[in-house]
Amino acid sequence: MATIKAAVHGFGNIGRHVVDCLANARDMECLGVIRRASSLGTRSSDLKGCPDFASIDELAAKQGRPDVVVLCGPSRNVPSDAAMYLGKGYSTVDSFDIHDRIPTVVAELQEAAAENGVKAITAAGWDPGTDSVLRALLEAMAPTGVTFTNFGRGRSMGHSVAVRAIKGVADAVSLTIPIGGGRHSRLVYVLPEKGASFEEIKKAIAADPYFVHDPLDVREVESAEDMERVADNSHGVLLERTGASGSIGNQRFSFDMRIDNPALTAQVLVSCARAVTRMEPGAYTLIDVPPVFLLPGDRMKNIARLV
Amino acid sequence: MATIKAAVHGFGNIGRHVVDCLANARDMECLGVIRRASSLGTRSSDLKGCPDFASIDELAAKQGRPDVVVLCGPSRNVPSDAAMYLGKGYSTVDSFDIHDRIPTVVAELQEAAAENGVKAITAAGWDPGTDSVLRALLEAMAPTGVTFTNFGRGRSMGHSVAVRAIKGVADAVSLTIPIGGGRHSRLVYVLPEKGASFEEIKKAIAADPYFVHDPLDVREVESAEDMERVADNSHGVLLERTGASGSIGNQRFSFDMRIDNPALTAQVLVSCARAVTRMEPGAYTLIDVPPVFLLPGDRMKNIARLV
Repeated sequence: MATIKAAVHGFGNIGRHVVDCLANARDMECLGVIRRASSLGTRSSDLKGCPDFASIDELAAKQGRPDVVVLCGPSRNVPSDAAMYLGKGYSTVDSFDIHDRIPTVVAELQEAAAENGVKAITAAGWDPGTDSVLRALLEAMAPTGVTFTNFGRGRSMGHSVAVRAIKGVADAVSLTIPIGGGRHSRLVYVLPEKGASFEEIKKAIAADPYFVHDPLDVREVESAEDMERVADNSHGVLLERTGASGSIGNQRFSFDMRIDNPALTAQVLVSCARAVTRMEPGAYTLIDVPPVFLLPGDRMKNIARLV
Repeated sequence: MATIKAAVHGFGNIGRHVVDCLANARDMECLGVIRRASSLGTRSSDLKGCPDFASIDELAAKQGRPDVVVLCGPSRNVPSDAAMYLGKGYSTVDSFDIHDRIPTVVAELQEAAAENGVKAITAAGWDPGTDSVLRALLEAMAPTGVTFTNFGRGRSMGHSVAVRAIKGVADAVSLTIPIGGGRHSRLVYVLPEKGASFEEIKKAIAADPYFVHDPLDVREVESAEDMERVADNSHGVLLERTGASGSIGNQRFSFDMRIDNPALTAQVLVSCARAVTRMEPGAYTLIDVPPVFLLPGDRMKNIARLV
């Protein structure tokens, strides 16, 4: 089986897990990690023997060109990072997760990918990502009906970042707790800066657009150690649909998943890094990808095993 | 939105539901039903206004050529039916469900489809079919681990037919009951022919290759009316996987579905009839199909809504 050569851009929580997933994929190889020059060589046990570089050009000069670059920087940087790599003739995968901007990002990356004869899969995590595939599949099975995506209990990165941006907040964790019907309450742990008023912070959170629509419970923690105690990586989703196939109702579906969040995001990225090598030039989301492309090995053997 | 023109081959339990699903799909149209000449015009309310014909040639002469023929005859006839339609230049979808023959059928249809520049999706029901997509997706999310497919409680067509073939059996229904770990027990209702020995039938069922591996409970019913009471269309599946993303274990997934069996099979066929018009020439299973192809409407709008 030909080996797929990957490079990893960014070495935060997701990037470390991507290196781990690549090390566990027999048909893939990690050529190296691209990270800030000031960090080179640090946390080397997490690198699992992969060399690290300050740029793709240095990586390519030393290791040869990768088939795909797995983007593991912050979501807000993904569109420009992806465009840069596509412009240099590298295919990319990313887990861009700002839902309402996804169509725009697909259109932008489509242009860059087509121009350079390469491919991109964007929004490739679990939501957006594999949950999106499930939502599409359930609509194909019961076109009339309502799907509820119930997140949690787990830490929401977006909401946590929003609280950390509030004046007087030293650190914060926002947990998403499902309350049914695809709706959620928020449980926020806040470590105030010295001298900051917890009551003022509470009011600012309640007025923030991220929180204004949902039931809210804000709790004060007293130290960084206490914050660490509540900041684990467990997450989950309960995706539910009741609908009709043709005119026959009471078709009932539920998908329940309980996972380590960065590990799953990284694994979906790595499976998509495999898939992207099998796509035609262009930009895609997971609902554009034939599921068999995500798996190692021969298509016909996978059909025999899974269909 | 351009209308997809479908014809329905076979008008049994699945065929009737396919006509119903097509009537409920705003982007699709049923040009007609192809069935035995002796049945033409019967059960006309189920036809929902669709004309019926004894052959595709008669249908095409009167209604024009369909974009796709939905095959709703018995599984054993599917490979030859599909080859016949592909040979005449029609794309097909079918719910062929004899798992161990699927790779062979894909290879046969691939040849016929490529030769005639048309497309086929085979094994397009819920298992094989949408369950296959889930099994593929869960492996992409947690490559190491075990998936259990637990069927039921519901009627197994294959097992019911196997019992009906036993000497002395007037009618039979075999229910599949999950006992965990992807294993099943069988509860079989038998109506013996007049004068036949129930004890002999019981022994023959226990020795049948369809039943020899599973816990078995055979019960006698006394009349066709009693048999009707147990022969409903409810079915379901619980698909479970626990595995690892990279080296991180305890990733847990379960998909639970409770459905009317022929209605769901028909709906998947109709969604695949839409998808097949968007594929390149060739033969496919559901794990080869980009999920977005299954849905009506504009790709980018579906991405905005579902991703």
